[in-house]
Amino acid sequence: MTGETGRIEAFSDGVFAIAITLLVLELKVPRELDHGPTLAAALAAQWPAYLAFTTSFLTILIMWINHHRIFTLIGRSDDRLLFYNGLLLLGVTLVPFPTSLVAEHLRYEGQQLAAIVYNATFIFIAICFNLLWRTAAVNDRLLHPQADRAAVERVFDAFRYGPLWYVVAFGLVFVSVMTSLALNLALAIFYALPHERIRRSQSRKT
Amino acid sequence: MTGETGRIEAFSDGVFAIAITLLVLELKVPRELDHGPTLAAALAAQWPAYLAFTTSFLTILIMWINHHRIFTLIGRSDDRLLFYNGLLLLGVTLVPFPTSLVAEHLRYEGQQLAAIVYNATFIFIAICFNLLWRTAAVNDRLLHPQADRAAVERVFDAFRYGPLWYVVAFGLVFVSVMTSLALNLALAIFYALPHERIRRSQSRKT
Amino acid sequence: MTGETGRIEAFSDGVFAIAITLLVLELKVPRELDHGPTLAAALAAQWPAYLAFTTSFLTILIMWINHHRIFTLIGRSDDRLLFYNGLLLLGVTLVPFPTSLVAEHLRYEGQQLAAIVYNATFIFIAICFNLLWRTAAVNDRLLHPQADRAAVERVFDAFRYGPLWYVVAFGLVFVSVMTSLALNLALAIFYALPHERIRRSQSRKT
Amino acid sequence: MTGETGRIEAFSDGVFAIAITLLVLELKVPRELDHGPTLAAALAAQWPAYLAFTTSFLTILIMWINHHRIFTLIGRSDDRLLFYNGLLLLGVTLVPFPTSLVAEHLRYEGQQLAAIVYNATFIFIAICFNLLWRTAAVNDRLLHPQADRAAVERVFDAFRYGPLWYVVAFGLVFVSVMTSLALNLALAIFYALPHERIRRSQSRKT
Repeated sequence: MTGETGRIEAFSDGVFAIAITLLVLELKVPRELDHGPTLAAALAAQWPAYLAFTTSFLTILIMWINHHRIFTLIGRSDDRLLFYNGLLLLGVTLVPFPTSLVAEHLRYEGQQLAAIVYNATFIFIAICFNLLWRTAAVNDRLLHPQADRAAVERVFDAFRYGPLWYVVAFGLVFVSVMTSLALNLALAIFYALPHERIRRSQSRKT
Repeated sequence: MTGETGRIEAFSDGVFAIAITLLVLELKVPRELDHGPTLAAALAAQWPAYLAFTTSFLTILIMWINHHRIFTLIGRSDDRLLFYNGLLLLGVTLVPFPTSLVAEHLRYEGQQLAAIVYNATFIFIAICFNLLWRTAAVNDRLLHPQADRAAVERVFDAFRYGPLWYVVAFGLVFVSVMTSLALNLALAIFYALPHERIRRSQSRKT
Repeated sequence: MTGETGRIEAFSDGVFAIAITLLVLELKVPRELDHGPTLAAALAAQWPAYLAFTTSFLTILIMWINHHRIFTLIGRSDDRLLFYNGLLLLGVTLVPFPTSLVAEHLRYEGQQLAAIVYNATFIFIAICFNLLWRTAAVNDRLLHPQADRAAVERVFDAFRYGPLWYVVAFGLVFVSVMTSLALNLALAIFYALPHERIRRSQSRKT
Repeated sequence: MTGETGRIEAFSDGVFAIAITLLVLELKVPRELDHGPTLAAALAAQWPAYLAFTTSFLTILIMWINHHRIFTLIGRSDDRLLFYNGLLLLGVTLVPFPTSLVAEHLRYEGQQLAAIVYNATFIFIAICFNLLWRTAAVNDRLLHPQADRAAVERVFDAFRYGPLWYVVAFGLVFVSVMTSLALNLALAIFYALPHERIRRSQSRKT
């Protein structure tokens, strides 16, 4: 039983680790002959790539932390769980694509479309997370018999309101692409920063 | 003993996770200067790449789920098992190549050959799965002493008839490339979707 | 509890393993048509890439060994630990970028800037290691109750003086880029080589 | 203790899995516009790449199997073991580079140099394997107290004579590049094929 979710976690960890590491391939090294006056100028011109890298890295990191938290509460697996976990991983492996799309097209004609694809990916992932969690937790279908009830409630809360921010970021694309991406970065930093409240409850648990 | 198949599973998980994550590298970001009128048109023109990505992702995911199921029943390993597992992983790591081949050549002169290579890869993988399973399960050579007999029978059944669909898809290449690829996608979705029958028997087991 | 740091270690191992393996992508194979007189000349001209590969490989390897040592002493995790571990992994996945930057621009106009970025990355990683360790070890916040006190003290010592060398290497960039990079390589080799003192105390532990 | 070699194995598994999966990136998909008359001709012209892929895949697979066998006998680790294991992994991550070098330059001016680099990589790996094994096994330094003595002797035997074949392959480069590469492929297939003798002794162990 532990063995079964154990291998799901190992496989998922592998996919998260690879997706988060592949992001660095987006940071293109200016070739010695390609750029104009100086390397400094060539590197500075790539700022959208650095921003996209940082946002995506933090976002995948948070997704991994969430995945990790959820699976400490899940005790069994079935085909439906495998399916939604697979869809979620599909979303995670996709992240380098919209990241690169935004980095390449920011400040050009296609920036709005790039931001739409970027935000849509994260909404897709948020939906997968909800389906995965509801498959496991509604009626305690697949939860650990000893799963901490307070922790279960906190996940339900987080998944109820969290995705709304991504919908707001999606909507903002049509007002201002930059504001939408800034909200994404702000969300990534906010969720990545350690929160006293959560830490306290965590240490209470252990 | 568990340790031995444990490390085979860990290594295989790594290979599956990387192969499934590398698929995203097939999704090329249209460069700002490369494309014609709009980014939207450039992205839309890539639909074969999205289709190939989705099909291959789901197919590798199903292969991982099958690998996972088989190894819950296998209790020991020997050189022959390591060899067939290695051949199977060779097939799995190959998947991004025929996927990319189809995405690049669909609608052009080479599309039939690309589809032949694509289908041949999956038939090769199906054969490896059969050899791996038969090495472990015929005469209970390497099965867990407590392996669930009904689950063993279900794997025998699945491996007897499942590969036939890939042979049909292979044959269809010579009639219609599109139909063959559509069958591949349909098979991937069909097998990926959770099936009540299987889930019920799974939860009975746990 | 072990389970919790267990999955952090597994995810981190994945990231370290991928980052260290992606370094090889920096070694570009001279194409048959690209190079002038001979393949030998084309390969020889790439020596900065080999040097950068070796230095980065050894450096990531040492970082993994350090990470591994630290986590044998850490018994619990909380959000702050996850956050600093995440920042550390961000630094680790970045390594292929400055490595490639140095390999591409050594002996050209941008070599000083490339060396600055390279050294800054390692200082950033050293800071993350310190924050991670202090989060765990100050007041024994998250250490194993049975953690070897002498080993804990050795880590405190190593983290107090070790980063100074990276600051020296950073400063040297403004004097001589080559000397700075040579110091980096020397540090990597020095730390990678097995040290009798450490080995003795290790075997004492086991 | 198990924990310590456990994490070395996990990290090494990750590196092996990634190195073996990255090999597929050597198989370049002929672009729709690049090739001449037909896709079939373009694919056929790539036969050195397929040969190099197969040889390298089987070789890394065998190296993983050897690594796996060795570590079932090793019970403790120290800095020297970590160092030689690190050097071994450096060799393993390098494999895609000489593989690609041979695939690109076979049948051209640089094929002999490419084959030298290819063979030198495998000799380097064989030396690392020997140093790793001797560090662990001479005087039973780091072996499991219950390690199967017959298995230990078999590893000593295999490591005494096995590397000679790679030296022969290296020497053959100066006679005939093709013969040398053919010997590499033959060795890879020979060692990958399951051997009755070994299998019998394995199952005796379990």
